[in-house]
Amino acid sequence: MKRTPPVRTRALRPGLRLGVDVGGTQVKLALVDQAGRVKAAGRVDTVRDPRVLTARIQNAVRSWGIKRCLGTGVGVAGDVDSQSGVVRISPNLGWKNVPLRERLASAGLPAPILVDNDANAAAWGAYFVELEGRPRNLVALTLGTGVGGGLVLDGKLYRGATGSAGELGHVAVDAGGEICGCGARGCLETFLGRDYLVRSMAGELVRLGRKVPPGLTPLEISRRARRGDPAARRVWEKAGRALGVGLAGFINIFNPDVVLLTGGIAGSARLLLRHAGPEIRRRAFATPRRAARLLVSAKNHDLGVIGAALLVE
Amino acid sequence: MKRTPPVRTRALRPGLRLGVDVGGTQVKLALVDQAGRVKAAGRVDTVRDPRVLTARIQNAVRSWGIKRCLGTGVGVAGDVDSQSGVVRISPNLGWKNVPLRERLASAGLPAPILVDNDANAAAWGAYFVELEGRPRNLVALTLGTGVGGGLVLDGKLYRGATGSAGELGHVAVDAGGEICGCGARGCLETFLGRDYLVRSMAGELVRLGRKVPPGLTPLEISRRARRGDPAARRVWEKAGRALGVGLAGFINIFNPDVVLLTGGIAGSARLLLRHAGPEIRRRAFATPRRAARLLVSAKNHDLGVIGAALLVE
Repeated sequence: MKRTPPVRTRALRPGLRLGVDVGGTQVKLALVDQAGRVKAAGRVDTVRDPRVLTARIQNAVRSWGIKRCLGTGVGVAGDVDSQSGVVRISPNLGWKNVPLRERLASAGLPAPILVDNDANAAAWGAYFVELEGRPRNLVALTLGTGVGGGLVLDGKLYRGATGSAGELGHVAVDAGGEICGCGARGCLETFLGRDYLVRSMAGELVRLGRKVPPGLTPLEISRRARRGDPAARRVWEKAGRALGVGLAGFINIFNPDVVLLTGGIAGSARLLLRHAGPEIRRRAFATPRRAARLLVSAKNHDLGVIGAALLVE
Repeated sequence: MKRTPPVRTRALRPGLRLGVDVGGTQVKLALVDQAGRVKAAGRVDTVRDPRVLTARIQNAVRSWGIKRCLGTGVGVAGDVDSQSGVVRISPNLGWKNVPLRERLASAGLPAPILVDNDANAAAWGAYFVELEGRPRNLVALTLGTGVGGGLVLDGKLYRGATGSAGELGHVAVDAGGEICGCGARGCLETFLGRDYLVRSMAGELVRLGRKVPPGLTPLEISRRARRGDPAARRVWEKAGRALGVGLAGFINIFNPDVVLLTGGIAGSARLLLRHAGPEIRRRAFATPRRAARLLVSAKNHDLGVIGAALLVE
């Protein structure tokens, strides 16, 4: 198969960047070099008040010699205006129109300060760490509490008109399906998001007349499936098929070089891909299907903070 | 709403290009200037033998003074390797691995000769003719016999790893739905493709115990819907809702500046959008939904051949 010629590895300026990954419970911090290597790391608890949060971050990185940094990159879960550095809405943080770049700048974090969606940052991190900046086109799907996405197209992070692109978890797989947290029905996330998997397992157990144990997690459902529990197997089958439908669509849309699954639930990729594979073969066109390499990176939990840092090119 | 700053209008080198749009029954030919204006036009009947077809094209443009042209751009329905100019597969033409660029070059058509998928060409044509090369991000959906797509992202035609990107008609709207010509189930095309609309109308008529008239067309179904025929209205309702589900997904994925509907069936856009609109409002995220302008261009049937010509930048 002849492909468009690969872009040579995207190399970034040598030097350190400060990465900040603002999550719902913790903020990850890292000093990252141009190859995505973590030179220092820390974390602070998340607080909703942006001023307090900024002070905590500043305090945590005080000893890192951040003066030498080429800049600061920040990933935030939510709708982020990457041009102005304003977090339009972050349901996790309870933020609305928070001028995060301004806040961090007045706290003296190294400029330029770039703020982006956390799934964009994670995709960008994966692009450098897992793929060494090499393929032209990457579709990254983050399977965690929700289902996020990030796109590197023609070697650049693709953000769309308002920095909101890449919401791959909110594409309908079954238009009449379950109601999603976003208000729509049958989004990919309703098959693969953490709570949906747990609820699906509870449903399967009830259907089989079995007790629903407390504290079910996707990890526990994986363990049970590997031990042969039919309810757990059925959960991954349904989720895997939906994943296959979604991935086939992304392959037909993007004709990517690489499709990357990241996030905690990507740890169950084998269980998922057993059922996703046949759907992809049935639904994706032959040429783009053969061109797309499917990779899984479940173990590197720092892609978000690394990618945030590398937003500073 | 703050947007990423608009790219200034993409201007192409002044001069004429030869455009060739190879369809299943006819080949459209045009001499096109840098603004997408057609300076000469012609057409020949399609034949499956690439040599005969090439000779016909050469003959038809003989009097146009094509020596001065900056190059030749070609759009072909099918899976096209735009790097090598080989048509990998075109079901409509019965072609498999036809080295079209080579053929056209040996017939003396102006170099460089660029070959691309016809929906890509149509999107590129629409980008210049309808939008004057102005928005950064365009999602173009061609509603005709099938449902095709083309993507202009960050101001460039997006082709993917093997030139196969933009198959927007083959994304599942209802994973368990009707079997599609592509072999999958419930693709957007199974709701909006010409034959599916006709079949849907026949189904509605049968359901109501009415006779199915011969020679139904989407245009006729539109006329009937406008006259209040409940069967016809139901056809456009189902199609419109599926279109809305699809467009909401594209808005969440691409965060486009413009979504453009082209092709013959876009002539029924009002009937479709009445039902697509509520689905889009329900399913697309607020920020990208507000940023996306929805445009319809049903009348310009030359976008394909113009866009093909403008592949020569």
